[in-house]
Amino acid sequence: QGILERLDAGEIVIGDGGFVIALEKRGYVKAGPWTPEATVEHPEAVRQLHREFLRAGSNVLQTFTFYASEDKLENRGNYVAEKISCQKVNEAACDIAREVANEGDALVAGGVSQTPSYLSCKDKTEVKAAFRKQLEVFMKKNVDFLIAEYFEHVEEAVWAVEVLKESGKPVAATMCIGPEGDMHGVSPGQCAVQLVKAGASIVGVNCHFDPETSLETVRLMKEGLQAAKLKAHLMCQPLAFHTPDCGKQGFIDLPEFPFGLEPRIATRWDIQKYARKAYDIGVRYIGGCCGFEPYHIRAIAEELAPERGFLPEASEKHGNWGDNLSMHTKPWVRARARKEYWENLKPASGRPYCPSMSKPDGWGVTKGAKELMQQKEATTEQQLKELFQKKK
Amino acid sequence: QGILERLDAGEIVIGDGGFVIALEKRGYVKAGPWTPEATVEHPEAVRQLHREFLRAGSNVLQTFTFYASEDKLENRGNYVAEKISCQKVNEAACDIAREVANEGDALVAGGVSQTPSYLSCKDKTEVKAAFRKQLEVFMKKNVDFLIAEYFEHVEEAVWAVEVLKESGKPVAATMCIGPEGDMHGVSPGQCAVQLVKAGASIVGVNCHFDPETSLETVRLMKEGLQAAKLKAHLMCQPLAFHTPDCGKQGFIDLPEFPFGLEPRIATRWDIQKYARKAYDIGVRYIGGCCGFEPYHIRAIAEELAPERGFLPEASEKHGNWGDNLSMHTKPWVRARARKEYWENLKPASGRPYCPSMSKPDGWGVTKGAKELMQQKEATTEQQLKELFQKKK
Amino acid sequence: QGILERLDAGEIVIGDGGFVIALEKRGYVKAGPWTPEATVEHPEAVRQLHREFLRAGSNVLQTFTFYASEDKLENRGNYVAEKISCQKVNEAACDIAREVANEGDALVAGGVSQTPSYLSCKDKTEVKAAFRKQLEVFMKKNVDFLIAEYFEHVEEAVWAVEVLKESGKPVAATMCIGPEGDMHGVSPGQCAVQLVKAGASIVGVNCHFDPETSLETVRLMKEGLQAAKLKAHLMCQPLAFHTPDCGKQGFIDLPEFPFGLEPRIATRWDIQKYARKAYDIGVRYIGGCCGFEPYHIRAIAEELAPERGFLPEASEKHGNWGDNLSMHTKPWVRARARKEYWENLKPASGRPYCPSMSKPDGWGVTKGAKELMQQKEATTEQQLKELFQKKK
Amino acid sequence: QGILERLDAGEIVIGDGGFVIALEKRGYVKAGPWTPEATVEHPEAVRQLHREFLRAGSNVLQTFTFYASEDKLENRGNYVAEKISCQKVNEAACDIAREVANEGDALVAGGVSQTPSYLSCKDKTEVKAAFRKQLEVFMKKNVDFLIAEYFEHVEEAVWAVEVLKESGKPVAATMCIGPEGDMHGVSPGQCAVQLVKAGASIVGVNCHFDPETSLETVRLMKEGLQAAKLKAHLMCQPLAFHTPDCGKQGFIDLPEFPFGLEPRIATRWDIQKYARKAYDIGVRYIGGCCGFEPYHIRAIAEELAPERGFLPEASEKHGNWGDNLSMHTKPWVRARARKEYWENLKPASGRPYCPSMSKPDGWGVTKGAKELMQQKEATTEQQLKELFQKKK
Repeated sequence: QGILERLDAGEIVIGDGGFVIALEKRGYVKAGPWTPEATVEHPEAVRQLHREFLRAGSNVLQTFTFYASEDKLENRGNYVAEKISCQKVNEAACDIAREVANEGDALVAGGVSQTPSYLSCKDKTEVKAAFRKQLEVFMKKNVDFLIAEYFEHVEEAVWAVEVLKESGKPVAATMCIGPEGDMHGVSPGQCAVQLVKAGASIVGVNCHFDPETSLETVRLMKEGLQAAKLKAHLMCQPLAFHTPDCGKQGFIDLPEFPFGLEPRIATRWDIQKYARKAYDIGVRYIGGCCGFEPYHIRAIAEELAPERGFLPEASEKHGNWGDNLSMHTKPWVRARARKEYWENLKPASGRPYCPSMSKPDGWGVTKGAKELMQQKEATTEQQLKELFQKKK
Repeated sequence: QGILERLDAGEIVIGDGGFVIALEKRGYVKAGPWTPEATVEHPEAVRQLHREFLRAGSNVLQTFTFYASEDKLENRGNYVAEKISCQKVNEAACDIAREVANEGDALVAGGVSQTPSYLSCKDKTEVKAAFRKQLEVFMKKNVDFLIAEYFEHVEEAVWAVEVLKESGKPVAATMCIGPEGDMHGVSPGQCAVQLVKAGASIVGVNCHFDPETSLETVRLMKEGLQAAKLKAHLMCQPLAFHTPDCGKQGFIDLPEFPFGLEPRIATRWDIQKYARKAYDIGVRYIGGCCGFEPYHIRAIAEELAPERGFLPEASEKHGNWGDNLSMHTKPWVRARARKEYWENLKPASGRPYCPSMSKPDGWGVTKGAKELMQQKEATTEQQLKELFQKKK
Repeated sequence: QGILERLDAGEIVIGDGGFVIALEKRGYVKAGPWTPEATVEHPEAVRQLHREFLRAGSNVLQTFTFYASEDKLENRGNYVAEKISCQKVNEAACDIAREVANEGDALVAGGVSQTPSYLSCKDKTEVKAAFRKQLEVFMKKNVDFLIAEYFEHVEEAVWAVEVLKESGKPVAATMCIGPEGDMHGVSPGQCAVQLVKAGASIVGVNCHFDPETSLETVRLMKEGLQAAKLKAHLMCQPLAFHTPDCGKQGFIDLPEFPFGLEPRIATRWDIQKYARKAYDIGVRYIGGCCGFEPYHIRAIAEELAPERGFLPEASEKHGNWGDNLSMHTKPWVRARARKEYWENLKPASGRPYCPSMSKPDGWGVTKGAKELMQQKEATTEQQLKELFQKKK
Repeated sequence: QGILERLDAGEIVIGDGGFVIALEKRGYVKAGPWTPEATVEHPEAVRQLHREFLRAGSNVLQTFTFYASEDKLENRGNYVAEKISCQKVNEAACDIAREVANEGDALVAGGVSQTPSYLSCKDKTEVKAAFRKQLEVFMKKNVDFLIAEYFEHVEEAVWAVEVLKESGKPVAATMCIGPEGDMHGVSPGQCAVQLVKAGASIVGVNCHFDPETSLETVRLMKEGLQAAKLKAHLMCQPLAFHTPDCGKQGFIDLPEFPFGLEPRIATRWDIQKYARKAYDIGVRYIGGCCGFEPYHIRAIAEELAPERGFLPEASEKHGNWGDNLSMHTKPWVRARARKEYWENLKPASGRPYCPSMSKPDGWGVTKGAKELMQQKEATTEQQLKELFQKKK
């Protein structure tokens, strides 16, 4: 059954997790460029990660084609081995995803994401050409459906959807935006409306924000669609990092990005709460993005097992809310084998010299403004010193 | 070259990371029992993790035989599929480790760990028999050397070393203790002395405590050996979790163990500091235990690259102190591509409703003591109320 | 010169700090009732606190008549000694404030605040009668101007202003609201408009929120007035507690209120930042409420000394940004005698077992809703257990 | 009854709180010099603070003569008005303390503290002369007993005790040390022994460390005395700041000292726990030092009311464990009127951008060491860069 048949029938579809962050930690992806040449260089590593998500409950395996447009791969030229062409990367990604999908009951989704062409103000034709080049591979390899994801500008996302729709396959579209909307200030509701009008059957968000913030954005999208009397399925693939402190552009601007995010990683229990809340809001395509490891996906599948009527394969290695701990030798660890314990735990960071929130970088303090401010302060300081001198 | 030849020549040997925690997250190990039947059930997953550590710079691949003694596997009976015998698990572990070791220049080490037999007060013969059973497999599969690891009681560790020495192969021994010593109060220095006298050529600690605490324990071991005029190589394989707040029994007693440890996960920069400090103290076998992912091992290899003269394979996907970020589109992210930035970052947890430290469980508050205390408080309360009544 | 002459001439007027919290800590006020019978019982304590604020730079001494309406004092009956009448409390408050004001160049402001009559839905006539009773004392004692403060409902605040205007004296009005507006959802801008239309010459906020939040509310008031083409002076008297986590009703709902607020107390440097920001926004009546001690008021006066051209009396005991520390014996303490140090300090709480933010109480979880939720969870739990049983 | 009669009879004696920090905030003392010329300049402010402590339950009023030795006042010359002689400051302090003590049932204690003469290596005769000069005033004014307090070096403390013993009055001696002992490494136990041998009847600690740490130091003093078969009463007057992170020299070295300590201020409930623990350890002279405000002293008196059989005057303005809150209008605030609530509260700091612990300054990083370290790092960096270049 295809993605739309499942969603139309009211099924919950579980997405997969984040490839670039997971494979960076495993040693196969470079932080910074974030390109997916590992599909050619180290297919066994990509295959294994797909397999872990499948076992954890993913119903969709996305081809590992993030940032795999030709302009991006070229742009990151000196990082990617010369001989690995855009086409090879995309083809290998499709083959690996299909191979693993066949080990279970998963669909394969071909994915495109934002392009350097758009950011450097190339025109519509050129940007669309980049998407079309990837789409050709997806068609040749016959993926089950298509996802346009990680767009900061709704205009570019609409162009992507328009290209993907040429295929006749179902199209999902997710933007990496928060409740404040896209980089031009288009609200989530308006973004959703434009994407659906362009042909997307499924809309939502991915990346950049934590589950709570992302669900709020999806909720606003839902409101926008209702107001416009449009229908679409809702989808959410957030970070598995806590980011209550980030600004409009999300976790990229946090000082911890990308090499100090560890203390922000979500627990499996955080993700169970996310899955429940997503379900309650009406989201039926529920997955993850950066930071989502296989056990996070399993947490979605376990939380929603009562609704779905089954558990994923990997649950054979996991108790309900930690109940395997009941076999532990120490009585106080055995006492942790219950939902109430984990649900209420406020996990400590073990880092008493660190804060709990950060100020995002990059909020537009121009050099000129700073200098002006410093000048003013210097004057004030001088005046104050004179006053104190007089006082003495 | 064998492990002792390398260490005797002054080389730095890099160990591998933690299997049970990593494979639990990947969906192949049960938390609680923590047994390694995945070597038989899902060899591809174990193989891939070995390979990632090898690429990250590990010079030793430990067979995934943690808690693989017969008594332990039986004890965890209803969790492990009946048909998987102790022998099969150990054999498969050896085969997989050897297969991957041959892809590079790594040694294979067979490992034994503490037994339920000892904890349930079985006698020396019986406990030794459990170790011997595993040793037989290691000999048949011809591992390069042996490790007795994760012992809380030096007595059992000594028994393990005595058995392993029967093989004629080099033996390393690490205990999961902190600066306060083993569960009977034997100091780290005394533990080290007993282990070396029993035949261990390499001694140190693994698991249970964070890098800083573990290095302090190894330092005390070194002092003990010096005082006793004994010589041995030093080894350290700590947690990749921050645990400044744990008690004598380590992270097991922390309320976050094992499903809420995320905020405590070390960054790669924490591990670079650990590697440097370990080197400065004189430790030459430097690795990790629970929480160590491939990128943590890579951090050891990169920190000590100047001393060793080479970088690991996986460094081709990692810049020196984050310098791949210099390609980022946003100027404030590019500004993070330098050592000073990451070295001084105090990463935020993104969890303002959580504390930074926890009180360990299990510190002997008996029910009787608690009741007594409550009674006393009740009396005091009553008296106080009467005083306030009088006052009004 | 009167309050309006000063403000009209562009002067900065510095208010005083919080009496009930300060005198509770000094042993003269009861937390809970928060009534000011100390003016009769312990005038020396009230006088001393006024004097400290005067020395710190206050240009206005408010009579300590908070919650001194007759209905409030009666309502708190069993806490206040019977013989102390409403009139006595108010008269004594006026006498003490005037006595200390005469020691310097300060104005005396008579203050009224929200009444139990309004909260228990008494009608306009009855509520106004309560205010009028206090006003009679203020007129007899000839205070310099009047303040209606600490109102959660703009309707009651308007009634108060209307009564106070009968006197012919200038009237200021501050509400204890945040950016979300009053308890009926009237926005800050609308509140300001209504208060000015009722006759207030000065409007703003006091209490309930930290300086940053309060300034945002005043900014919204300013916008509201501009939109309505109304003119009034702006006033801000916030908490000296950090409350980024509080809800619509402010710090009352925080679990730490009122006996665990210590870790939230603002430093003098926090207050200097507040004073500067208030000035930049256009606020010219700048003072404090609960938590403001004399040194916080001094911080306002020192920050704005360059604009005002003079320092307060108590600055003879305080260096500019800590510069008396330059006499310290330890070099690293001497190194703290500079603005840059204190301005950038992120002060630690010394409480690693505590969180940095709290969830406010009281957000409407009714018992029924909770029970329903629990029932639903129980069902889900049962289903899940059965699934896991099947799986094994 | 004198101090020794009370203690010998098994009574609990409650000390007073911290003058310099409290009066600095009230505007009468300079941070840095910390000298007590306010006794002459603003006697009403000193009198009021004494009175608040008396009402809160203090049985001893210490003359405000901290740092009032002649050499100290001279040393701080340009801060103290020329005309105020050492003798005047000390005399005024005695007069004010006696005046307030007579309002209740309190004793007056004359106090001396460490001298610049000792720190600048003057000889025993000279240092003793400084103490003797203050003692002459105390004898003339007939204080009830004497306290030598705030000594970092036991040698100077012994000299002070020897001088004070010349008076024939009872002598108490407290050092500002932690469990690691005095600045020359003399252990707390040894310090206590030397002080008792020099003639002190009461020994303990004051200032520099939080209640928990200070009690541990007093416990070590008790052990030292027991081992030496000496008898003395125990006394504790700690900080009312949380300082789990400070080093050997206490809170002076924390980056927050002295103008950023607010988030560390103890709640009244922290102090009740301290009072109980002090009592359980056997301390019978229980008071406070820097940070202790009147309400903290009241907390000691209320916690120990059952043992003492009475409450202090100021308890008429304070309910038992917050029970006046039961009159609050909001039900969730009323729910806080109970011991269990406040005892278990983990108060939030409201400062998510701040850490919970700080690293103390001044731990011997010489400029030379730092430069060496930087050189080494530079070399390493260079080598590493070359390795990465080769790799690419």
